[in-house]
Amino acid sequence: MNCILVRIPYYIYDGNIAFFKTNAMSKSILYHAGCSVCLSAEQEIVSLIGSENVEIIHLGEQKDQIPMAETHGVKSVPALLTPTGNILHLNYGASMADIKG
Amino acid sequence: MNCILVRIPYYIYDGNIAFFKTNAMSKSILYHAGCSVCLSAEQEIVSLIGSENVEIIHLGEQKDQIPMAETHGVKSVPALLTPTGNILHLNYGASMADIKG
Repeated sequence: MNCILVRIPYYIYDGNIAFFKTNAMSKSILYHAGCSVCLSAEQEIVSLIGSENVEIIHLGEQKDQIPMAETHGVKSVPALLTPTGNILHLNYGASMADIKG
Repeated sequence: MNCILVRIPYYIYDGNIAFFKTNAMSKSILYHAGCSVCLSAEQEIVSLIGSENVEIIHLGEQKDQIPMAETHGVKSVPALLTPTGNILHLNYGASMADIKG
């Protein structure tokens, strides 16, 4: 099967279009909301695992991401969604209810 | 200045003896107490940052380490002491009072 790279993260092959995430769960996701506890945790996590291994999502600014975060089990921020799909709540900054305002 | 390596972590130089930790805060320390939340967090952290970068201390079995953990700010386990000296409380397994029994 020949693949033609069109642009990341979309490929065309066999005449069909496949959509998939190139970084599907190879990265961790750090959910935060800009609070001081969040920023401190963000610094620590980036320092520990490298900025290339973690995507930062600010739930206060990207409220459309809140349902996905809750689906993964995020109860409060900052929280780290690991590549295995588990949530590590890091200290306590704010609850999801606080973020939803 | 000539340095003669005697054995890690001790060096002799200029006729004096200097004591220093070779891994002073280059590693993180994961404090736990054997609970299921702790074990899950331990797996995640080892997977994320590598077993060579984290020392695991079981406070239930090494109670002499409790004062040092508390000095660093550990309120509950599992908790990660990062190389910068900050504590990340990961989810919630047990309080320090629970561990002290």
